[in-house]
Amino acid sequence: MKVMTIGIAGGTGSGKTTLTRRLCERFGNDVSVVYHDNYYKAHDELTYDERSRLNYDHPDAFDTGLMIEHLRRLRAGESVLCPVYDYCQHNRSSETVEICPTKVVIVEGILLFASEEIRSLLDIKIFVDTDADVRILRRIQRDVQERGRSLDSVVNQYLRTVKPMHEQFVEPSKRYADIIVLEGGHNLVALDMIMQRIAHHVESGE
Amino acid sequence: MKVMTIGIAGGTGSGKTTLTRRLCERFGNDVSVVYHDNYYKAHDELTYDERSRLNYDHPDAFDTGLMIEHLRRLRAGESVLCPVYDYCQHNRSSETVEICPTKVVIVEGILLFASEEIRSLLDIKIFVDTDADVRILRRIQRDVQERGRSLDSVVNQYLRTVKPMHEQFVEPSKRYADIIVLEGGHNLVALDMIMQRIAHHVESGE
Repeated sequence: MKVMTIGIAGGTGSGKTTLTRRLCERFGNDVSVVYHDNYYKAHDELTYDERSRLNYDHPDAFDTGLMIEHLRRLRAGESVLCPVYDYCQHNRSSETVEICPTKVVIVEGILLFASEEIRSLLDIKIFVDTDADVRILRRIQRDVQERGRSLDSVVNQYLRTVKPMHEQFVEPSKRYADIIVLEGGHNLVALDMIMQRIAHHVESGE
Repeated sequence: MKVMTIGIAGGTGSGKTTLTRRLCERFGNDVSVVYHDNYYKAHDELTYDERSRLNYDHPDAFDTGLMIEHLRRLRAGESVLCPVYDYCQHNRSSETVEICPTKVVIVEGILLFASEEIRSLLDIKIFVDTDADVRILRRIQRDVQERGRSLDSVVNQYLRTVKPMHEQFVEPSKRYADIIVLEGGHNLVALDMIMQRIAHHVESGE
């Protein structure tokens, strides 16, 4: 079985997760998902306060080496034990989740295409592009309404790290995408096209 | 038979025509192509010199109304007589070319997505995006080497109309695309995805 890897990157609030979710709904057990966010580095040596002040929007915040090893194994048809990140503790949890090999592996993350090694392991690179004002509105809704954070903390983090790291690393990585999709999972024409491509692989192995 | 219309837009030298050609090679008689350029307005009332000084990069240079009428008829499964533009005379020629209805109609043109009415007649809108420096190099090669124009005339036209019109009309129309493809027909991953989508339509009618 040839494994097809699909990278879905794009800024915070761009619609990556909606796109990923729709592909999972459509292809069920033929698809597994690897989230770059689960590979945030463990920082057991730091206090909670120290960890909460780290820059989580820089490529160095991730244990990308471990994710690359896992992608290689999934492409080779092997299972992996994926780390699980604990957002409340700002640290890697003691849990892992087994990801079994599937015909299609979706890899999702803001900074995927900033790494040449990750790019080389992706058969299809999709960048979800959405205007910055729409993205920050979605992030505010998610973090304030769903995650109970204060508006000020969201605004401060956005201006202090999210936006500068986006401009320094995420936006320039767009040029490595095979296709750029405006508005992610809400873009039905693009969704349809991506689904046709995956369906062809699932059915024929090509 | 449901007709699928695919718009391919993007700046001069972006790789639109390479993409269109590859789709034609793959789908043969199931595809016909409508070039917006063939709908440049006739200007029999002007002299050759006057015509050669017109701005051919502005949306008003096209008889878009006629093209829209033709697209409606092709979508309804009717043939049309497409005008043919004479680049040597800078005028519409007396010839026409019959375009027969096919399962897939590709519409190619720099300014397609600047027109709301054209957009509404396209099932899939693809914008081919390529860096401006690469695009002008391709245009120079085409116009100087293949069309025998002087380098100065290409540079002057580029700076006088092509570039400002690109920035005013072409670049902003990118936001209406369903997918953005970097490097057009040279982007094999995107080409593959577009071909799968078309193949599905040709085979199943969906």
